[in-house]
Amino acid sequence: MSVGVAYTLTVRCQIDNRPGMLGRLTTRIGEVGGDIGAIDIVRAERNVLVRDITVRVQDEQHGETLIEELNAIPGITVLQVSDRVFLAHLGGKLAMQSKVPLKNRDDLSLAYTPGVARVCRAIADDPEKAFSLTWKTNSVAVVSDGSAILGLGNLGPEAAMPVMEGKAILFKELADIDAVPICLRSQHPELIVQTVEQIAAGFGGINLEDIAAPSCFLVEGRLHESLNIPVMHDDQHGTAVVVLAALRNALRLVGKDLREVRAVVNGVGAAGTAIIRALLEAHIGEVTAVDRYGILCEGDDHVQTTMQRIIASQTNRERRRGTLVEAIRGADVFVGVSKGGVLTPELVRSMAPDPIVFALANPVPEGDPEMLREYARVVATGRSDQPNQINNVLSFPGIFRGALDVNAAKMTVGMRLAAAEALANVIPDEEISEEYIVPSVFNRAVVPTIATAVALAAIEEGVARRDHLPSRGGD
Amino acid sequence: MSVGVAYTLTVRCQIDNRPGMLGRLTTRIGEVGGDIGAIDIVRAERNVLVRDITVRVQDEQHGETLIEELNAIPGITVLQVSDRVFLAHLGGKLAMQSKVPLKNRDDLSLAYTPGVARVCRAIADDPEKAFSLTWKTNSVAVVSDGSAILGLGNLGPEAAMPVMEGKAILFKELADIDAVPICLRSQHPELIVQTVEQIAAGFGGINLEDIAAPSCFLVEGRLHESLNIPVMHDDQHGTAVVVLAALRNALRLVGKDLREVRAVVNGVGAAGTAIIRALLEAHIGEVTAVDRYGILCEGDDHVQTTMQRIIASQTNRERRRGTLVEAIRGADVFVGVSKGGVLTPELVRSMAPDPIVFALANPVPEGDPEMLREYARVVATGRSDQPNQINNVLSFPGIFRGALDVNAAKMTVGMRLAAAEALANVIPDEEISEEYIVPSVFNRAVVPTIATAVALAAIEEGVARRDHLPSRGGD
Repeated sequence: MSVGVAYTLTVRCQIDNRPGMLGRLTTRIGEVGGDIGAIDIVRAERNVLVRDITVRVQDEQHGETLIEELNAIPGITVLQVSDRVFLAHLGGKLAMQSKVPLKNRDDLSLAYTPGVARVCRAIADDPEKAFSLTWKTNSVAVVSDGSAILGLGNLGPEAAMPVMEGKAILFKELADIDAVPICLRSQHPELIVQTVEQIAAGFGGINLEDIAAPSCFLVEGRLHESLNIPVMHDDQHGTAVVVLAALRNALRLVGKDLREVRAVVNGVGAAGTAIIRALLEAHIGEVTAVDRYGILCEGDDHVQTTMQRIIASQTNRERRRGTLVEAIRGADVFVGVSKGGVLTPELVRSMAPDPIVFALANPVPEGDPEMLREYARVVATGRSDQPNQINNVLSFPGIFRGALDVNAAKMTVGMRLAAAEALANVIPDEEISEEYIVPSVFNRAVVPTIATAVALAAIEEGVARRDHLPSRGGD
Repeated sequence: MSVGVAYTLTVRCQIDNRPGMLGRLTTRIGEVGGDIGAIDIVRAERNVLVRDITVRVQDEQHGETLIEELNAIPGITVLQVSDRVFLAHLGGKLAMQSKVPLKNRDDLSLAYTPGVARVCRAIADDPEKAFSLTWKTNSVAVVSDGSAILGLGNLGPEAAMPVMEGKAILFKELADIDAVPICLRSQHPELIVQTVEQIAAGFGGINLEDIAAPSCFLVEGRLHESLNIPVMHDDQHGTAVVVLAALRNALRLVGKDLREVRAVVNGVGAAGTAIIRALLEAHIGEVTAVDRYGILCEGDDHVQTTMQRIIASQTNRERRRGTLVEAIRGADVFVGVSKGGVLTPELVRSMAPDPIVFALANPVPEGDPEMLREYARVVATGRSDQPNQINNVLSFPGIFRGALDVNAAKMTVGMRLAAAEALANVIPDEEISEEYIVPSVFNRAVVPTIATAVALAAIEEGVARRDHLPSRGGD
């Protein structure tokens, strides 16, 4: 279970040097439910031994209990507890790297003054040359206001950094993109827009991240209009692309046609909204959107924000009214981006034959995965310890790789739909199964396949600055 | 001459395959004044040879003349001209790097979700933890508005990028600092301040770069007040620190006391202003400031901006009036950050005995270096092809290294003065000479020496977040 990895502790204990002590220690760890990894001796003195014991625990609370229990054993003192997650973050996860040598005056004259002056002049004459002569050709700013960090809410810009650094190393390792974490002090959409406009010249793309709805819609829309580089809010479209890809494969499996199915999307925040829009753009038969007040129906009182009105006007053509119970009855597909536990066996049983259920609430899905698999034909979740993980790590690296490969000026609907189709097609027909509708994030075909599709779509839609694709010898 | 390196061309020629052709080619290159490096055969066909010839030329114009001359030789066609400087810039000079592995799900759980959530929560509880758990502990934003790029003037944000990338690789190679180029669309000081305030949370320091006066004073002052990380406009203080260090060593050589000498500073832009302030902060005897209208004298009409008034109120205690001629008479030190050719032999001869002349205008110094050396005891310029190059590459890497080593909250006067003294002391007494008052930018003692002095000064002044210095095993 990957969750366990996040809670592996290394406990440094001072232990009285007499027979039976190690046995007492390991027995107690087992009794408390800890899973022992390595045991090392740090130093041996006349009367005491100092040992490092690596233990997997379930969560933070469990770890604290374990430490207390060990300290309670006579003759054992816990000196220090190291936490693998915090160790991995010490000093940050990112570094810069120079691509040119800088060992002597000759190097300096080429990369800095006086040589650099001619490069500056060439770009001043034609700013598009920044796409060949600066890192703009391969760089993305990962911008957050810290307002919706993971499932943790509004934590502010400093606390957003570990996620943005994590995103940046994913960009690098999966797609060889140079991504810079930029965490903003303000959460005011106007200021976010203005700041990104100010800094955009040095980047080839903008990945908006963990910005709360409804700000995120305004910010993305405005930047999409004003900048001449691709802008994508990953929480919206990264997720929507993976959902659409997974749905395509689930439908291949059950033999239904996207244009004829009805989907219920429960939760109309950033991700839900983007999923609904992507489904409509992919020409799904029908969507019913449900939020905490029930089915979104055009003209209803609780349809208030601009985005809710747009969604209501494009969905629910039958003008259903009611709650999730009414919405889900007879639906082919359920996509939940809401909260844990809203799905019951009865609700799933009320769906059309071969129900497809994506229960994406994190960390607790809309229904227990075991239960869902009993009643639905295909089940996907956001969890890494379950089959069919809907993880936007599957989409954003390839999408931006493709956009940068042709130095695209915009991120278009067509590019995102192409990404979803390409991602779906990474799994050949003969391999698709109920438990395999999306590839692994470590499948090396994912990024180049999506990138090629996105780049071709950008060329076709006229937003590409280059009309040829790079060779991908390295992949 | 390093200037030559900036203009090395590789010329690909198609040459008729008959005797004597190569001789004609190389002879013509020599006649035109080109300096041949390597000659390689790219391919040989029945009737023609394709060769790459590497040639040093004086400048762009000279290169174009050379190409025309070669094309004019019957039987020779220039197919392509590659320019080493542009080749070195292809795709940019910077890349990001991941410091943690990301090869499997275990790695992902540590560096990204779900593990990262606990790190975010820890920082949300105590934002200062960003200095240990994110790259903020070692990162600097190199921010420019593109308004004063090198000596080229206002080129805009895209054209500023090659300089900022160059700065970033210098930060990395010389001081192991992770610097990010940020080029701003607006040149309005309020917007610059606001944008930097918005993005500062993710960085441990702000290096302002190539921002024109007088905006630069306002921008630096405001950010120094509002941010809790060090802010330094390098064109001002980086230069001033090196000038002060060089002056200390020049005075050691001629046996004068800083507190008793009078310096003339010609040019009161960003660098001149900072040099004057640094000299005053170091308790120099007296400064006379001169701009294009003559000596700055308190209350005079042409003393207009806030910064000019501050300078005028702190200099020229004898209330001299007049031009550079009146200012320089009897002065011990001349520092020029103005324009080429203003110094004559007569002016230098009018100075006090053992004149010290820093002619820093670029690319043409205030006086011909040969002439200056004839009349002055110590001469420094901004040129890399002359002894005693005043180059802020000598200061900014060490200054920021020291500030980051203690996660300083501010960049103080004391830290900069400490940097100047440390830089001066890199050259031991017995090695100082008329032609060696500043160390080479490749002297590996420079950065750690300055860094230690700056960190200690930060601790002493109470702006350090850490009170111990890192060990410098690596240096």
